[in-house]
Amino acid sequence: MPERMIVIGGDAAGMSAASQARQLRPREDLEIVAFERGRFTSYSACGIPYWISGLVEDREQLIVRDPETFRRDHAIDVRTRHEVTSIDLDEREVVATSFDDGGREVREPFDILVYATGATPVRPTWADTSAQGVFGVQTLDDASDLRDWLDQEDKPRRAVVVGGGYIGVEMAEALIRHGLAVTLVDRGTQPMATVDPDMGALVREALVGLGIDVRTGVSVTGLHDRDGRVCEVLTDDGAVPADVVVLGLGVRPNTELAGRSGLPLGVTGGVRTDLQMRVVDVPGVWAAGDCVETFQRVSGQPIHVPLGTHANKQGRVAGLNIGGSYATFPGVIGTAVTKVCELEVARTGLLEREAAVAGYSYITATVESNNRAGYFPGAAPMTIKLIAEQHTGQLLGAQIVGTSEAAKRIDVLALAVWNRMSVAEMTALDLGYAPPYSPVWDPVLVAARRANDTVSRTP
Amino acid sequence: MPERMIVIGGDAAGMSAASQARQLRPREDLEIVAFERGRFTSYSACGIPYWISGLVEDREQLIVRDPETFRRDHAIDVRTRHEVTSIDLDEREVVATSFDDGGREVREPFDILVYATGATPVRPTWADTSAQGVFGVQTLDDASDLRDWLDQEDKPRRAVVVGGGYIGVEMAEALIRHGLAVTLVDRGTQPMATVDPDMGALVREALVGLGIDVRTGVSVTGLHDRDGRVCEVLTDDGAVPADVVVLGLGVRPNTELAGRSGLPLGVTGGVRTDLQMRVVDVPGVWAAGDCVETFQRVSGQPIHVPLGTHANKQGRVAGLNIGGSYATFPGVIGTAVTKVCELEVARTGLLEREAAVAGYSYITATVESNNRAGYFPGAAPMTIKLIAEQHTGQLLGAQIVGTSEAAKRIDVLALAVWNRMSVAEMTALDLGYAPPYSPVWDPVLVAARRANDTVSRTP
Repeated sequence: MPERMIVIGGDAAGMSAASQARQLRPREDLEIVAFERGRFTSYSACGIPYWISGLVEDREQLIVRDPETFRRDHAIDVRTRHEVTSIDLDEREVVATSFDDGGREVREPFDILVYATGATPVRPTWADTSAQGVFGVQTLDDASDLRDWLDQEDKPRRAVVVGGGYIGVEMAEALIRHGLAVTLVDRGTQPMATVDPDMGALVREALVGLGIDVRTGVSVTGLHDRDGRVCEVLTDDGAVPADVVVLGLGVRPNTELAGRSGLPLGVTGGVRTDLQMRVVDVPGVWAAGDCVETFQRVSGQPIHVPLGTHANKQGRVAGLNIGGSYATFPGVIGTAVTKVCELEVARTGLLEREAAVAGYSYITATVESNNRAGYFPGAAPMTIKLIAEQHTGQLLGAQIVGTSEAAKRIDVLALAVWNRMSVAEMTALDLGYAPPYSPVWDPVLVAARRANDTVSRTP
Repeated sequence: MPERMIVIGGDAAGMSAASQARQLRPREDLEIVAFERGRFTSYSACGIPYWISGLVEDREQLIVRDPETFRRDHAIDVRTRHEVTSIDLDEREVVATSFDDGGREVREPFDILVYATGATPVRPTWADTSAQGVFGVQTLDDASDLRDWLDQEDKPRRAVVVGGGYIGVEMAEALIRHGLAVTLVDRGTQPMATVDPDMGALVREALVGLGIDVRTGVSVTGLHDRDGRVCEVLTDDGAVPADVVVLGLGVRPNTELAGRSGLPLGVTGGVRTDLQMRVVDVPGVWAAGDCVETFQRVSGQPIHVPLGTHANKQGRVAGLNIGGSYATFPGVIGTAVTKVCELEVARTGLLEREAAVAGYSYITATVESNNRAGYFPGAAPMTIKLIAEQHTGQLLGAQIVGTSEAAKRIDVLALAVWNRMSVAEMTALDLGYAPPYSPVWDPVLVAARRANDTVSRTP
């Protein structure tokens, strides 16, 4: 008799776990069933803004593998439009409801369970409306609904994006490129609170330059609708007309079912796992992706970071271990990059406020330097900010804002953070140098020198 | 009485040491005299090919600071067109000859000496010719002579570049862009012996695609000239017509004076220093830049790596220590990047043959992966090769060849090599992910996974 593996959630984490386990164990040894609420499997949610903007032409391009491919090539029994409504850990079975088949319930036994339900958009009470025209953009189903709304005969002209994080900023740009007038509303002092306010100010400039009406320090209080369609966003700073509202208020781990079923949740609301992605104290059950809690390697604190790259890695780790191999997921350091118009924005490690909360005393150093040798065509400046521990000079975090060949330089700083390097040691790093790629002092080295000077001078 | 510092060599290393020392010690405390053979100080030798090709319009753009700036703003007494001909360590003085002043000799006492004479091009006996039209491209003076030759009334039409290393390949491209027919002759099986032959084959394709006649496995045996001008390069595979010959056979440390004066030289021919860039066992004497021997951190072996970025760093370290601060230069790992036409080529750590010589047993893994998400406009493939120690999986070296956003990814691998990471740990690295910058599995992660699989399977 083969073992039986059930996957709840058919996107990055769940399907990575399933495919990886399948690679190591044939169907005679392991039967795999995957339940997915939506119509799609294994797609790039991060690509949604680019499909909305039109930069990516075809929705299908965002789909890595469709359910049929999983069934045919990987012998994974994918059941889309099925919601798992309960998990019975004692009986070792799940109950799933089909959305299509008159709500028919199926019970499926498991030996191995992978909980990979992803995240759900934060939806404040003011967004609980029956009015049409209000969208999250968490799933490809959400995105399809939004595209249909934008492309209806009576085309929406005015969009309001609520929330200025990654998805909010990317959607604001996508909508203005789609031809709408866009207002971005955020409660913070600057958009992109995932970088420090001084760097966020540069993001704001880029958004304003695109023609986006950026309103910060503003809270949304409600929505008005007319004939069942949204028409206005109410804020503590007045009403903003809107034919379409996009919610970019972030997400939280989708763990209602997990909590109800007795899986342990952490302080962030995510499922708690060990390094092998096994759910803590629940034998035979694994969890991965946007629904789990992981930890920040720099602060040592639990953290929830919903991001496709982690979901893929965690799913792979779960699948390798389920398959009888061995792998661990060693936590995150908070690296993220995004593009706003021509502006490249990147971060890794801790922001200033995060470093303070973690208990670090720190110095900061900000420099401007070029992507290429100053005399080389295409040379353009970028701003790099480093945060280093006082006395030791350990690099705690870094942020970059630039217009060309800037953002991915964060990876060098990410490895420095990962390896707990000091800014002193970093001044001597052997980085690639040639005029088309870097000045003789790479911007990362320039920043390290400045930070090291500051550490040395700080008593 | 101020101390007296003499610098021999007015380019990257020497002038970095001088400026850094000046920043820490005012002229009342430290007098600085710098002797430079050529007409220029502190210029980008790496930029020479781009000036020859015309990509950089003006020679002056390559000059970071001219002698007058050093004199005026930094109180450094720069004397160009002066060659130091002897160093007397007992009397603590140097003798320098002026090229302009009828060969007048000056004697200058020193308390502190910085030896920063750079490197000299390898010039085989067959290149000892009185014929015109044969050029090295080590200094800006060399490059100026070459430009004058190319732009003479009777324009040279056929160029032969001898040697297919970085400078040879870059000059071949520069000359073809300048409008000449170009033949590149190299003794090796592939051009660019600074990467493994399998990666060098990709470089060859790019050169051929540019229209360059690439002849490998060919040795030059002599030159023919007519009316005092070079007209043919003789090889063991026949003669090649040439109106101009560029030598790109590499360089060696310029340490004839150092050896003669009793400074210790290492097995590479470079001056031996400690980590602070103090010449070993010679108090008060420092050395930095292309004339010194350093060490390969991965193999633990002495190595000579002439590269502007190291020269600057070593000069800075010397200057900081001379200035009374503290810094060390911790060796190199052999990172290098270059651009051949649209091809980006990068390496770090050890090549296969270098790993073998160092005594490592190793595995290799080569993958092809995209710079951006596959569906994102501008997605283009790159090839990454990793070399990792058997059993431990420690990353020993990496090479990248690609066409877009490829080469500078070597820096991530450079930090992994620097920090002695294993490919297993690297599979979980938290690198920046967003569709404009990377697939959900960054190429570096894809390569690490493949290498880790290979390490696991290797007994």
